[in-house]
Amino acid sequence: MKNILNTINTPKDLKNLSIDELQQLAHELRAFIINIVATKEGHLGASLGVVELTIAIHYIFNTPKDKLIWDVGHQAYGHKILTGRRTIFDTNRRLNGISGFPNIFESEYDAFGTGHSSTSISAALGMAMAAKIQGDTKQQHIAVIGDASIASGMAFEALNHAGVTNANLLVILNDNAIGIDPSIGALKDYLTQTKNGKELNRDNIFEALNFDYSGPIDGHDLPKVISELKRLQNVEGPKFLHIVTTKGKGLKKAEEDQITYHAPGKFNAETGDRIKSTDHITPPKYQDIFGHTIIELAKKNPKIVGITPAMPTGSSLKYMIAEMPERAFDVGIAEQHAVTLAAGMAKQGLVPFCNIYSTFLQRAYDQVIHDVAIQKLPVIFCLDRAGLVGNDGATHHGIFDIAYLRCIPNMILYAPMNEIDLRNIMYTAQKGLSTPIAIRYPRGLSENVDWKQPFNDILIGKGRMLKEGNSTAVLSIGTIGNIVNFAICQFDEEGRDKVGHYNMQFIKPLDDKLLHKIFSSYKTIITYEDGSIQGGFGSAILEFAAQHNYHQKIMIKGVPDNFIEHGKTQELKAIVNIDEASIFNTILSTL
Amino acid sequence: MKNILNTINTPKDLKNLSIDELQQLAHELRAFIINIVATKEGHLGASLGVVELTIAIHYIFNTPKDKLIWDVGHQAYGHKILTGRRTIFDTNRRLNGISGFPNIFESEYDAFGTGHSSTSISAALGMAMAAKIQGDTKQQHIAVIGDASIASGMAFEALNHAGVTNANLLVILNDNAIGIDPSIGALKDYLTQTKNGKELNRDNIFEALNFDYSGPIDGHDLPKVISELKRLQNVEGPKFLHIVTTKGKGLKKAEEDQITYHAPGKFNAETGDRIKSTDHITPPKYQDIFGHTIIELAKKNPKIVGITPAMPTGSSLKYMIAEMPERAFDVGIAEQHAVTLAAGMAKQGLVPFCNIYSTFLQRAYDQVIHDVAIQKLPVIFCLDRAGLVGNDGATHHGIFDIAYLRCIPNMILYAPMNEIDLRNIMYTAQKGLSTPIAIRYPRGLSENVDWKQPFNDILIGKGRMLKEGNSTAVLSIGTIGNIVNFAICQFDEEGRDKVGHYNMQFIKPLDDKLLHKIFSSYKTIITYEDGSIQGGFGSAILEFAAQHNYHQKIMIKGVPDNFIEHGKTQELKAIVNIDEASIFNTILSTL
Repeated sequence: MKNILNTINTPKDLKNLSIDELQQLAHELRAFIINIVATKEGHLGASLGVVELTIAIHYIFNTPKDKLIWDVGHQAYGHKILTGRRTIFDTNRRLNGISGFPNIFESEYDAFGTGHSSTSISAALGMAMAAKIQGDTKQQHIAVIGDASIASGMAFEALNHAGVTNANLLVILNDNAIGIDPSIGALKDYLTQTKNGKELNRDNIFEALNFDYSGPIDGHDLPKVISELKRLQNVEGPKFLHIVTTKGKGLKKAEEDQITYHAPGKFNAETGDRIKSTDHITPPKYQDIFGHTIIELAKKNPKIVGITPAMPTGSSLKYMIAEMPERAFDVGIAEQHAVTLAAGMAKQGLVPFCNIYSTFLQRAYDQVIHDVAIQKLPVIFCLDRAGLVGNDGATHHGIFDIAYLRCIPNMILYAPMNEIDLRNIMYTAQKGLSTPIAIRYPRGLSENVDWKQPFNDILIGKGRMLKEGNSTAVLSIGTIGNIVNFAICQFDEEGRDKVGHYNMQFIKPLDDKLLHKIFSSYKTIITYEDGSIQGGFGSAILEFAAQHNYHQKIMIKGVPDNFIEHGKTQELKAIVNIDEASIFNTILSTL
Repeated sequence: MKNILNTINTPKDLKNLSIDELQQLAHELRAFIINIVATKEGHLGASLGVVELTIAIHYIFNTPKDKLIWDVGHQAYGHKILTGRRTIFDTNRRLNGISGFPNIFESEYDAFGTGHSSTSISAALGMAMAAKIQGDTKQQHIAVIGDASIASGMAFEALNHAGVTNANLLVILNDNAIGIDPSIGALKDYLTQTKNGKELNRDNIFEALNFDYSGPIDGHDLPKVISELKRLQNVEGPKFLHIVTTKGKGLKKAEEDQITYHAPGKFNAETGDRIKSTDHITPPKYQDIFGHTIIELAKKNPKIVGITPAMPTGSSLKYMIAEMPERAFDVGIAEQHAVTLAAGMAKQGLVPFCNIYSTFLQRAYDQVIHDVAIQKLPVIFCLDRAGLVGNDGATHHGIFDIAYLRCIPNMILYAPMNEIDLRNIMYTAQKGLSTPIAIRYPRGLSENVDWKQPFNDILIGKGRMLKEGNSTAVLSIGTIGNIVNFAICQFDEEGRDKVGHYNMQFIKPLDDKLLHKIFSSYKTIITYEDGSIQGGFGSAILEFAAQHNYHQKIMIKGVPDNFIEHGKTQELKAIVNIDEASIFNTILSTL
């Protein structure tokens, strides 16, 4: 049989295929995705689930003139392959390769960039309203959104608005009952009932919001999806199509273990078996330090609770959810709610650990200020994935948190240098603080294999001298301190003697006493952080120096003022000059 | 007849009253609120609408042990009066007086502080879950939320989560079809149908979300509200009571003109007639400069659209909504959606002005980064109420925007010094920028009566020398530049000659050329802003100086690192030392 996929260079090439050929194409597309992701890694399950939908949309609609927006976007691999990126798909998520998410700068078929969830309906509605204003009554606007994402508040806001417009908007609910982890919440239960036919004779929620609702239909039934899209193409106003799919469809292991196969790493394309990395012992991930330590502490302190917005696996709160289900909660993709829920719990005397990726806390910024900090409620924020996160790229780097949290009164802001610090600050925080604290730590492996040390108190606001010097002082925050240590080791003895290194631990409050000592002893100060230079830790040091009339040279190093694309974390660090070699050279330039 | 209200010092004093006496109390409470607000000003309509509900809740429930949270909180005047604050209610919203919103530091009856909308369900659920964890199965948790607030995404997130818990949560929907402006959206239409009886025989949205729904009932029928609350008190799990009320109930003018009487200023307590301030001509408010200028520009540029999340009156976008309803949109309390809707429109080539109060943009921080800035979409953000806002207090000051926006790549950040600047930057921005811009301006009156000047281009990134000097340079941003001007005028000629003043206009990008000139010419630099010192404009100047090896004295002046309470704006500026006298003294200290 002739390979069809290799003939598809744009969606136009789909238009003359028969239904049988489209079915064959679905088979080939699925195999293509599996084969590449098996060796090159990336998100798997989500794209396998929407192969038929992807083909049907591009077959029926007139992309890129009709606008197609993939919510979150990690399910858009098939879309990328069918829209001119088949031959470069093996560069997915790599430095200078294509992005793992839709990206408007990459292709005109990517109508809107995504990465974070629940933005697609707002964006598509904006385009649909714009088309009407511009006199185009034919252009179609399609948002494909999962059942986990549609439960997030922002999506509801968009549905609520769309329902009172006459915009040409088609919302396709890709209902597979799972995000990265299984979906949760009352809406999910409701959708399950709907799928089981219990609500079919009644108005449903989406009809109540003025959408023309159809479904649920089998999203893997290609002819059915095509005929339904064809019908909807000619329906005016806001429309809602509910399709039911299986995440990981077509790879048995991925269907059976949907959480693992969301992004499985390397695997055998035939069997689906995951290929374990070689067997040498590595330190645990920071997320696991968090996940195991919170249980250890919660066993002794009955006030501790854990909260995650839809990241039980990614945050490793799943261990506590399994062991103490009455005290650990996945609240769904609902960062805003997660923060204020934690505030309510703290107000009642509990000790909530609210674990949110740094980049996703941006979704709950107002709640951190308005519900937590103003009221001095001692919520313990654990910000995973702080700093550069690597292959997920610009949408996911956790580089703004220092700047956006540092301006909030009453907030303690801490960055551990290693897993011992992380454990100790968690231990210290749960003993009872009088204000909130944010603890930021990176994605990936921690520093030491032998991590399970007895707990020790950390003094709030105390920095740490790692090495004394007499000429240049490096002030680091967080795990970048380890890289600074390595860089300093590169110097010969004479050079090394000149360089002091201080891991400041707390961005807020600063260790004024230690800073006065440093500023009184060194000619040059260099600050290092893995966050935005604008308004970050270095900026805090500048404010200290200005306030106290220190006038020596201060160099601020961190992530510069542009968005950083995807690539290996190590590659990205080198690009922004916070890798070992760059740090060595910067220090050298001051000696 | 004996006055009952004067005998109510705590809600316990309600418990022995008869229904007739409670009805009389409702009458007295309403009159009390009207009489005080008539002369002392404040929010009026919302509290008048919930007089019966307030009495009923405190009569039935066991506050403060049972937790009562007022969403937004400007309807809590009756609650404050009944819970021990009757005799100090005339200090409402004044410096050192009680807050206009519930405040946990003010009273144990204020179970959770509010101010921004849609937080109450999350907070109450957190408390309810905490009570269960702590073994208290009796404690009740009540969130009172309006129909405008419940349509905001965060409230939906909380409902979605609550529906799968067994928490003792009672959500009372106070449905009056209006927030500050009339509610909008599909949910509002749905609620209207429900009130009209169209949906009564079917499942409704709240039942679909697993709530035990009852209503709608007349919220001014005190016996009915009491009996329904009594019944619900003994129902386990999440409950939803839908009551229908009239905003402004009991004052005819307030019922008839609900928008104006949301916060009417001084008025005649008998007739409701508003008392106009004396007749001298004042400059227009900044919001009106925006509201009129956008129409002027939109008449010439068909690409311009206007968006407000529920603040058509407060932002003055109402004028454009009235004149060009197809191009100006109130999207409800939905800041997240508003920003991404604007991004979608910008992607399609429109020129969206997205007008959001500075404090409320905190709700859409992620969308500004993820949907607008990463994609370089030229959305024009107009941030009204930037800086200290006065009597609304800590929850509403717009003092973090510079810090939280400055770290975002691709963002232009501008602060006009007067209405001419505001008009000109709006004019410049709508001609087409290649990146987003945020324009921050304060609450209240602008500077000049004669504001409607012909448009001029503003060069992006150019600051402005207002006065040359030879010793101390003051760098101001925004309207505080006018206060600096006044302060400089206080010096004698010799002093004045020493002081230079530069209104920098752009926080980002900075005018490097002008800064090099300033740093090469002055011994001392003082920066002034009406925002957070941490990470703000002054911090940007410090970063510039560090980068370019300038080492003179730099003093950073702005809002310090603590939450600023309510009071007149002028009083608050004096407290944080950014009033004319403080500025004079600070400059003097450098000469």
